Amino acid sequence: MELKKLIAEQAAKIDEVMRQDIDELAVELDPLLIEILQYGLFSGGKRIRPFLTTSACRLCGCSDEGIYHLATAFEYLHAATLIHDDVIDKASERRGAASVVEHFGLAEAILAGDFLHAHAMRLVSRYGGPQALTVFCRATTAMVDGEYRQLRNTGNFTQSESDYFTVIKGKTALLIGAACEIGGLYGGGDEELCSGLQAFGINLGCAFQIIDDLLDYQGDADKTGKATGNDLAEGKMTLPVIYALERAADQDRQALLSIFADPQERGRSLVRIAELVEHYQGFSAAREKAEELIDQAVAALPLLDDPGARQERAVLKELCTYVLNRDK
Amino acid sequence: MELKKLIAEQAAKIDEVMRQDIDELAVELDPLLIEILQYGLFSGGKRIRPFLTTSACRLCGCSDEGIYHLATAFEYLHAATLIHDDVIDKASERRGAASVVEHFGLAEAILAGDFLHAHAMRLVSRYGGPQALTVFCRATTAMVDGEYRQLRNTGNFTQSESDYFTVIKGKTALLIGAACEIGGLYGGGDEELCSGLQAFGINLGCAFQIIDDLLDYQGDADKTGKATGNDLAEGKMTLPVIYALERAADQDRQALLSIFADPQERGRSLVRIAELVEHYQGFSAAREKAEELIDQAVAALPLLDDPGARQERAVLKELCTYVLNRDK
Repeated sequence: MELKKLIAEQAAKIDEVMRQDIDELAVELDPLLIEILQYGLFSGGKRIRPFLTTSACRLCGCSDEGIYHLATAFEYLHAATLIHDDVIDKASERRGAASVVEHFGLAEAILAGDFLHAHAMRLVSRYGGPQALTVFCRATTAMVDGEYRQLRNTGNFTQSESDYFTVIKGKTALLIGAACEIGGLYGGGDEELCSGLQAFGINLGCAFQIIDDLLDYQGDADKTGKATGNDLAEGKMTLPVIYALERAADQDRQALLSIFADPQERGRSLVRIAELVEHYQGFSAAREKAEELIDQAVAALPLLDDPGARQERAVLKELCTYVLNRDK
Repeated sequence: MELKKLIAEQAAKIDEVMRQDIDELAVELDPLLIEILQYGLFSGGKRIRPFLTTSACRLCGCSDEGIYHLATAFEYLHAATLIHDDVIDKASERRGAASVVEHFGLAEAILAGDFLHAHAMRLVSRYGGPQALTVFCRATTAMVDGEYRQLRNTGNFTQSESDYFTVIKGKTALLIGAACEIGGLYGGGDEELCSGLQAFGINLGCAFQIIDDLLDYQGDADKTGKATGNDLAEGKMTLPVIYALERAADQDRQALLSIFADPQERGRSLVRIAELVEHYQGFSAAREKAEELIDQAVAALPLLDDPGARQERAVLKELCTYVLNRDK
């Protein structure tokens, strides 16, 4: 089956499980809270994290349908993160509609995020057990830690490649690694299998973030839904810029740093910045790094001698190609 | 030992365990995050929730010191709630110092709350196991639900006693019930014992909240740290007012409701409101309700034939008296 179709089919299944779950919650919870949960959860999204969880589970030879309940926890947590992010960024829009904070208000948004947080943990504990919960909590606290490091690094334009990877691992990749690892744990995978799945997810997550960085410069704003150069405007360093600064001649390096130092100048000089990053192969080096990480992700994927597992492995490999080639 | 001294001694022990825990977290977490955790956690507070957890554990005959680690989870969750509450209320002060959101900023406050949430769950899972985590998550989601009901009820001055108890159970009492129940679970208490401890905590928590309502009118602002009539100014109904409205003659009832309908009038007419509530015995009826709940709390306390358990039971009974008589 074509990957896009498979992703859409799995997303529909995850949505169905979440809708049933919310219907059950609606019996005892406040109707406004339920309305906000539905608004925040069913506004689109490919449900990639739960896709990875269920796929990792099948790769371990397990076809138990309970995995879908466990997988939704990653979508609940993801929704919590987006809702709180929009409060932090004072973002009025999300996926072409009003954000939760814009539509329902500050208290409602913060509390809905807190609810989703706790609900996600409850599901992981219930369907995945204590070991899965430990993995999940570790990834969640690492995510906050990554956000903090990014906050502290905002406006610091002399970050190293290693600073960058510390941030994106925490912010994005460890949770994707956890989605894969927890799928493996549920599927009965042994330690080696689960740590392979985790490594797959972490590498995939890092590559995903690097492609995001590239799209910030090279993407079509109509497709990505984000303005070009948004990261830099906000003072966030991205990998192409880090690579370009590393390679630039002294004069160009100083030129870039003095542009970066002035927030207004950053906005005005986007074309000039992109030219210099291009000149010093910042974009191609970042793409090569993403490809290298995808190779490492595929290499980490467990290889089981079972037709079902082999098929699932092929799906995850195809997902890797999809991540590398995405344009939004 | 005198109760106040015992509370202070136990609070010092809880603080010590939290400081060690934060020191361990500091090895791998962002220094700014650690600074905010310390700021939010060690700004005073009697640590009553952990006190209840460790006391419930001892009442079940268990003296394992690991209970202190489990008990800190309630303080971490409590701190998360206060930090997010101050964001929601745009409160610049907390316990006489700048609130976390005021001192560190919006993103920092929301993320620190999220971290503390996840960290609390991790500790409950680690030290209390899956059953404790289920209890903890249920109480956490109920807390958010209670906040939502309160949000939706704000400005609704025709709430019934039953609406009121639904809100305070969710917002306050279920979590205090969970603190006691989880202490019992850790202490090896059977189902009957744990459900007795839970009922004790829920009744105590409700009584605690009613005393809060009374202090809102009758408290000394210098001691409580809150302005008199604050709840009503914010459009929150409290039990004395609900009771007064139930008992008032039609004319006085209408007079009160028309004052309530206008936010400015509510502020101006505080003395008149208090007079009417007093006239219809709203305050004394609320105090009687709190006393009744405390009686129910004490009646729910398990009675074990063991000197240590009996002593612990006496401590919890004394705590009940303390809650009824507190003036701040």
